[in-house]
Amino acid sequence: MSMDELKRRLGQVSDLYAAAGLMSWDQETLMPEEAARVRGLQMATLEGLAHELFTGARTAELLEAAGEPQDEADAALLRVSRRDHAKATRLPTEFVEEAARARNEAHHAWLDARQRSDFATFAPHLEKMMDLARRQADLLGYDEHPYDALLDEYEPGMRASQVEPVFADLRDRTLPLLRRIVAAGDAADYSVLTRPFAPEAQKAFAWRVAGEAFGLKPEFARQDESAHPFQTNFSRSDLRITTRVEDYWPACLFGTWHETGHAMYERGISERWERTPVSRGASLGVHESQSRMFENLLARSRPFWERYFPHLAEAAPEVAAGLDAETLYRAVNRVSPSLIRVEADEVTYNFHVMLRFELELALLEGRLKVHELPEAWNARMQEYLGLTPPNDALGVLQDIHWSSGLIGYFPTYTLGNLLSVQLLEAAKRDPAVAAGIERAEYGPLLAWLVENVHQHGRSLTPTQIAERATGRPLTADPYVAYLQEKYAGIYGLRAED
Amino acid sequence: MSMDELKRRLGQVSDLYAAAGLMSWDQETLMPEEAARVRGLQMATLEGLAHELFTGARTAELLEAAGEPQDEADAALLRVSRRDHAKATRLPTEFVEEAARARNEAHHAWLDARQRSDFATFAPHLEKMMDLARRQADLLGYDEHPYDALLDEYEPGMRASQVEPVFADLRDRTLPLLRRIVAAGDAADYSVLTRPFAPEAQKAFAWRVAGEAFGLKPEFARQDESAHPFQTNFSRSDLRITTRVEDYWPACLFGTWHETGHAMYERGISERWERTPVSRGASLGVHESQSRMFENLLARSRPFWERYFPHLAEAAPEVAAGLDAETLYRAVNRVSPSLIRVEADEVTYNFHVMLRFELELALLEGRLKVHELPEAWNARMQEYLGLTPPNDALGVLQDIHWSSGLIGYFPTYTLGNLLSVQLLEAAKRDPAVAAGIERAEYGPLLAWLVENVHQHGRSLTPTQIAERATGRPLTADPYVAYLQEKYAGIYGLRAED
Repeated sequence: MSMDELKRRLGQVSDLYAAAGLMSWDQETLMPEEAARVRGLQMATLEGLAHELFTGARTAELLEAAGEPQDEADAALLRVSRRDHAKATRLPTEFVEEAARARNEAHHAWLDARQRSDFATFAPHLEKMMDLARRQADLLGYDEHPYDALLDEYEPGMRASQVEPVFADLRDRTLPLLRRIVAAGDAADYSVLTRPFAPEAQKAFAWRVAGEAFGLKPEFARQDESAHPFQTNFSRSDLRITTRVEDYWPACLFGTWHETGHAMYERGISERWERTPVSRGASLGVHESQSRMFENLLARSRPFWERYFPHLAEAAPEVAAGLDAETLYRAVNRVSPSLIRVEADEVTYNFHVMLRFELELALLEGRLKVHELPEAWNARMQEYLGLTPPNDALGVLQDIHWSSGLIGYFPTYTLGNLLSVQLLEAAKRDPAVAAGIERAEYGPLLAWLVENVHQHGRSLTPTQIAERATGRPLTADPYVAYLQEKYAGIYGLRAED
Repeated sequence: MSMDELKRRLGQVSDLYAAAGLMSWDQETLMPEEAARVRGLQMATLEGLAHELFTGARTAELLEAAGEPQDEADAALLRVSRRDHAKATRLPTEFVEEAARARNEAHHAWLDARQRSDFATFAPHLEKMMDLARRQADLLGYDEHPYDALLDEYEPGMRASQVEPVFADLRDRTLPLLRRIVAAGDAADYSVLTRPFAPEAQKAFAWRVAGEAFGLKPEFARQDESAHPFQTNFSRSDLRITTRVEDYWPACLFGTWHETGHAMYERGISERWERTPVSRGASLGVHESQSRMFENLLARSRPFWERYFPHLAEAAPEVAAGLDAETLYRAVNRVSPSLIRVEADEVTYNFHVMLRFELELALLEGRLKVHELPEAWNARMQEYLGLTPPNDALGVLQDIHWSSGLIGYFPTYTLGNLLSVQLLEAAKRDPAVAAGIERAEYGPLLAWLVENVHQHGRSLTPTQIAERATGRPLTADPYVAYLQEKYAGIYGLRAED
């Protein structure tokens, strides 16, 4: 019976987090602005009670008493719950509170520093973040490198020593490609991407395609607007994605389809883990593999626009005037080195990530001092992308992550990119999947993803998912080949160039 | 320090209820339909944890240990919390669970019985509801009458023996008025009230006036659509009202302003009781006095339409065509006996309530048997309103209340109506308030309501609020005088008639 009690308790914890999640979603989308102060207190209560309930002595007893699981599902539940419990109880309350306070201060200092492009005022807070990261790694424990303890929060089981060679390979093989693309020059007229497109029509088109192409239906999902697009959910039948509208209208479309990838992952997790800690994506990297697959590998493909260009032309004739599927396909696949990560294309994006990974590793080890960071950032931007930020706001201060104590988070973006192509290549070995993709009909692909990725939730590690689904560990090969083939076509590069 | 710990704990309880409230609001307004099952489990967890935290042994100790309060605010907080705690702990868990199950079954049986207009299948469930109501009254305790223990849930301190003479007086003095109005016949062309009025325009007009006339602003409130209009809130700076659109367009307008009255009450509660059990309206009756004041005494007044008719004409020219303020004023004040309570006008509404009060009192005492109820209902409908329901769906089965175990709830509607006029009369003794009302400028009135009603939350009882604000206990006099004067004018009745 203790297994039943454990499940009841895990269900309560899950419900508390779901409530905190709804409060957060509401805050970002609909909440009247004056409600913010009390909402903060309410969310803190819910998260505090959830943490208390999960780390409490009774939970420890129940995890202990559960003994040998009856079936595979229970085994996974116990494994994941014991792992989470062990990690959650390794950080003393005083440390968690100190870190929360320091992050709050660092976040405000960063907002101010970015506003004034003044790294110096942020520097002491970044020192503090690095100090906390080192202490957190020591508290959590690690075998090889303190970075592993941090990375493990986002990418369970992954180590810096595994990331480094993959990233080095990716860098060495895509840098020449990037240089050739830059040398080739524009491949389309990009001004069409800022033609006037009514905000409501943008959202409606993006949402309609999210349903028709990718299976995200109003029966179990909704779309709203927020300052920064995100996906959240309160069960697999209650998925929420948000979008925003900009002058550059592909932001709304591809942003929506990116979040749709996240949402469909959560949708596909087996119901047997409902209201348990297993019922989430396996890692940030695996999550990102789904969002980037939908956004880039599918929605930035030629078959996609062959199918959906007529729909776009119907939804927004003035945007589509004089265009065709091929022109649009080329326009939305522009490669152009730029300063800002979140605006980067498929080829340059990973350089932004690798740069950050290299720098945060050096900072954590103490090889690089915080005061040397802006210079190191700018040198590497020059090396990778041939650009030097005119100021730190457009350089080292652009991301929220470090100010929020998120050290070890950045690599997951590129791990997701790599995995997206490796998974898609594996899926295409099934002829029905491959044929569907050529017609932009993704039903067979979705079924393959549910079977091989989604349904497992956190019951498999990211490495297990990659190896079982694709037959080999994560590698840069498929991604590099994908980029080479796609962009050689768009930019007219010779194959052997 | 135990007072601090108590406040922390009450804050947590309040936050859990706020989260459950947001989940419920979301469910009624926006939630994808397939999310319902898990949402039910999540809400049950939040309410269960809130109840556990509030009734737990530590709360009892803290309420005990708090000793003598330091100030008036703490005194009120202790008084209300001790009262709630005592009541909450008087019902054993087994009773609460049995009642929840029975209500759930009764509710489904009622839905089905109403659908088929078949009272007999609902009858055993109503027997059970009455049985539970009697046992609940015994568990809660009472001095005079078991009904008092039930009524006290909604109208703290009120007794059946106080309600009865007030209702009898109201009945005896408004029945002759109603008969004279019916004899006088139509006072306007009511077909204008179903002219086509675009749903978005209805909602926008209603919401704009809610802000301009009644002070409900987007900075701390929002309006959404739901099947049944309601008001809820998660703090005084996070008010949510809902509306619905029907062919009869006044439903959206007056419904919105009704909920605005509820919302502005919660808005006016003093911040010092934030996140405590004091921070709610004093009772359902006092709440209803505010919603009915806005909906009827203000928005169905001549000065209101003199001011807002031009705005309506601007918002919906095709609706206003050929009309003027006076015509519209008469049309929205139609008096006409009808079968359905929620559609009733100001004069007939209270008869629907009094009938239910008299019948539920007789059922509780056992003077009336459940199987005799439809006949008793129909006889009284004939006596009061001159109508006989063609079937039980349009008669005794029309309301959700009894099937949900809400016995002792109905009188609060009429108590609210009576109090609304008694309060408004008192407020008008202030010349600035009176002058404002004549121009449909409600700033001075709102300030008076905050001062005399809103700010106190539950720190005063409904009786204290009525007596302090108006100088006398609740009586039917002002309400009767209001109806006589208003409808004599509209229906051209002679004053001494």
